[in-house]
Parts: sequence; C-alpha cells; structure tokens
Amino acid sequence: MDTTRNNRMSKTLADRREYVLITIVGLEGVPLISKGDDVGSVIVRAAEKNQVTIENGDIVVVAQKVVSKAEGRIVNLLDVEPSAFAETVAKEMNRDPRHVEVILREASRIVKMKDNHLIVETKHGYVCANAGVDRSNVLGEHHVSLLPDNPDGSAERIRRRIEELAEVSVAVVVSDTFGRAWRLGHVDFAIGVSGMKPVKDYRGQSDMFGHTLHVTVMAIADELAAAAELVMNKSDGVPVVIIKGYKYPCGEGSAKELVRPIEEDLFR
Amino acid sequence: MDTTRNNRMSKTLADRREYVLITIVGLEGVPLISKGDDVGSVIVRAAEKNQVTIENGDIVVVAQKVVSKAEGRIVNLLDVEPSAFAETVAKEMNRDPRHVEVILREASRIVKMKDNHLIVETKHGYVCANAGVDRSNVLGEHHVSLLPDNPDGSAERIRRRIEELAEVSVAVVVSDTFGRAWRLGHVDFAIGVSGMKPVKDYRGQSDMFGHTLHVTVMAIADELAAAAELVMNKSDGVPVVIIKGYKYPCGEGSAKELVRPIEEDLFR
Repeated sequence: MDTTRNNRMSKTLADRREYVLITIVGLEGVPLISKGDDVGSVIVRAAEKNQVTIENGDIVVVAQKVVSKAEGRIVNLLDVEPSAFAETVAKEMNRDPRHVEVILREASRIVKMKDNHLIVETKHGYVCANAGVDRSNVLGEHHVSLLPDNPDGSAERIRRRIEELAEVSVAVVVSDTFGRAWRLGHVDFAIGVSGMKPVKDYRGQSDMFGHTLHVTVMAIADELAAAAELVMNKSDGVPVVIIKGYKYPCGEGSAKELVRPIEEDLFR
Repeated sequence: MDTTRNNRMSKTLADRREYVLITIVGLEGVPLISKGDDVGSVIVRAAEKNQVTIENGDIVVVAQKVVSKAEGRIVNLLDVEPSAFAETVAKEMNRDPRHVEVILREASRIVKMKDNHLIVETKHGYVCANAGVDRSNVLGEHHVSLLPDNPDGSAERIRRRIEELAEVSVAVVVSDTFGRAWRLGHVDFAIGVSGMKPVKDYRGQSDMFGHTLHVTVMAIADELAAAAELVMNKSDGVPVVIIKGYKYPCGEGSAKELVRPIEEDLFR
C-alpha cells in the first residue's frame, strides 16, 4: 500500500462514513395519490410517519406512477377513439386498439414494431416500450397512466415543496422502469431530475496511476433510480425512497441530458 | 389508506427497516491487486480494517478491474502482434493497432464500427465498447486489462473464500462500467454473479389493484452494480462495496441470464 492509501485507512470511521456510506430508505404507507394531490407535501408527511428525517443533500426518488396520478395523467380507454392506423397495428399485434392509440399519441417516433412489442421514442426523447403507457398500479380496469408531460418540471415542483416544508435543500429524481437493448430484465431509469446534475463528469480527471480516465461521464441519476428500485420493489407499494450520503453534483440539470442525441447514437 | 396500508404503517421502525432500508458501504484502503492475489481474503481483511462486519445475506460487489488483475488478465501491448485486419481498423479509427488486436481477440462479433468507436459482443455475450479492454487503473503505460475469462466463476471463487473466512453466506457481483444504447453516460452492470439469482421474477404476481404486473423481470444484479458504483466512484479507489439489507433471490445464478438472446433482441 502506498502512503496515500495508508493515510486513507487511518481516517476514523466517522470520517470514512462521510465518503463511502450511502443509505436508501423507502417510505411505507404513502397514501394512494389522486389528481391534484400535493406530492411534495405527501412525501414530507410520509417521511415523518416513517420516522425518516429529510436532510440537506438527500435525494428523493419518486416513482413515475405517483407523479402521473397527481398530475391527472390517467386515461380511461373507454373514452379513446382509435385511429385507422392504431386499429391496423392493434390487429397485427393482437392488442387493444385504444391502448395502441394512446401509445401513438405519446410517441414522436416508432423505433421498432415486432410481434406484440411496440418500442417508441416518447415526446421527451425516451426510448421505451409502449411510450410508458402502462396499466399496472392504476385503479380501474380500463385506465392507463401516461408519463408526466414534463418530468423535470414535476421533479422541480416536488423538490420546491419538500424544501419549503422540511426547510432543507434536496434533489428529486422521478424514476420509471424500462427495458434495455442487449440485456434482459428491466431496471429503473431517471426520467426527471431537479436540484442536481444527472451526470457526473470525470473529463480531465486521472485514475490512480495518472492515466486520463477512459469513462468520462457517469449517468448517476440513472444509478440513483436503479438503487432506489431495490427498495421500491415492483409490487410492494413503496413509491418514494430517500437516498442519504451520496454527494451529487449540485446545480439544476435535466433528465433530458441522459438522452443520447440520435446523431450520436450508434444504435438507431 | 386501506387496512393493509394502515397495518403496514403500524409496524415498528425496526420491523420496517428489515424491509425498506439498504446500506451501501465502500471499503477503503483495498491494496493494489497483483496476479495470483486471493481477492476473497483481501476483501475480508479490508472489511475488518474498515470496521465493516460482513453478514449473512450481504452482497459484495467487486469491480472487474480487481478481478482481472488477480487473474492475470493484463496484456502488455508491446507483446502484441496486430493482424492485418487490426491494422486496417486501427488506421481507419486512428487508434493503436495493438489495442485493436486485443479487442478483436476478446470479441465474438462486431456490433458497430463508427468513427473511433468499436462496439463488440464479447465472448461472454456482453455488448460493450472495446470488448471491455481498458487502460484505466492499470499500472504501466502499455498495459490493458481484459474482462475475466469467466466472471461467474470469478464471483463464485471470491464468494466461497469470503464465506470460508468470514463464516457467512453472501452473494457476490462482479461489476463493470458500460455505455448504453439510447442514453448518454455510463453505468455499472453485473458481469458475474454467484450466490444469487441476477433477476427478480414477478411473473404471476399482482399489483396493488390486482392487475397482473406488466413488468415481469427486474435485472436486480444490474441495479445492485449501479447502486455500488455510487460509492465506488470512478477515480476514488474504492473497488469493493458491501450492500446490506437487500433480500435477493437465493440460488445459484449466472450473469449470462442478463444477456438478451440475439433472436429476442429487437435492437440488433
């Protein structure tokens, strides 16, 4: 071990914990959210009931479904009139034409149609199945939820409300569950951020041996969303998670920074 | 709130923490690893020095670089004789032909060549830049590290050694940093696992309203790797992270389960 490393080892546990200890705590008992609910206020109350203190520098990760419900981004499929194209696609895919219609309305581009899969780019630039239009955890047999219209704005509203009520400075990430190219299984991604930069930029920094780092930009907002999902669990009703101890890059960022511009993307 | 939710709220904090509190602690002062080093033993000693007790059910996330070094998966480019094809590609890309040669040897298929990007499928099935052949955090100007030959096997050896020395039952994830399609920035992924299933399968389970869950398989090993990276940080020399409090699906799994078979992949 070189001297720097030995010095590092001699730091006290308390010192160390400032650097390398992150805790992720889920809020249980978050009430069902309806249109018009004040999500920031719901979170602050739930944190109190959970005996979790929201502190400066915490990251609050909120599941998209909660945000969409509060913003009234719920559609009753019985009210939807499918277009001729939606009818054709739905027939081909053996799917509900009204559901397909809602997906098409949320899409800016169809990336891939195959079997019964409809992978689209959403108006926000996110590539995902069904434009994020989803039936699960929505009340009512014929209802689907849409992604928030402006997830960064949603994150900002929630952040400002939490900061006002809890008198702290935090970051907020709105997360959703997407599939990936090349790899099986879904993970959670950041679709909205506020109060932090969504990436950590290592450009110009060196590794332990003085080489310039090969990987220059880490998508930390996505990593925070993925970490939070470990506590949320799909079916467990834990839609809000507080992450403590991670020093995120401050400043106002947008989850759109995580979207690879089409001209730089080798894969579309 | 319905009754189930109220019941959940009435659980004590201690109960609750069993379900929704995860801690992620990085081990500092892990010594530089050389070929032949016993990584499991290094981890157990580092945990002791860090005053971190490795407990039953912990997940130990180990950065690929550490594993590759211990397994001697380091190549001196001065010893490499580039093929004619490597010379051609390197010239086209303005890259070191010996580096390109090593990448081609590790690849089973080239997914995309554009500008100076070389995205390949590795022999393990992973799609990533440069087949994971990487210069950063490797001693010596002309040295590169390769991915472990069998990362699941590496994870298993490390797991067995930790279990033997610490007398506990744990899971091990070997992680590496890759780029993604569609999204900017890198995140950490699981390239090897042992002692756990890499996915959590929700098939047949219902959401809060009794609908069958739309998302059925979560890639939890990738989420664990991403969560660990938040503590590792690229340049900080924290190559081993212990995750506590996450109930992973037990059983022996393989990170290859996270590779989407080419015939099911809509994107290649």
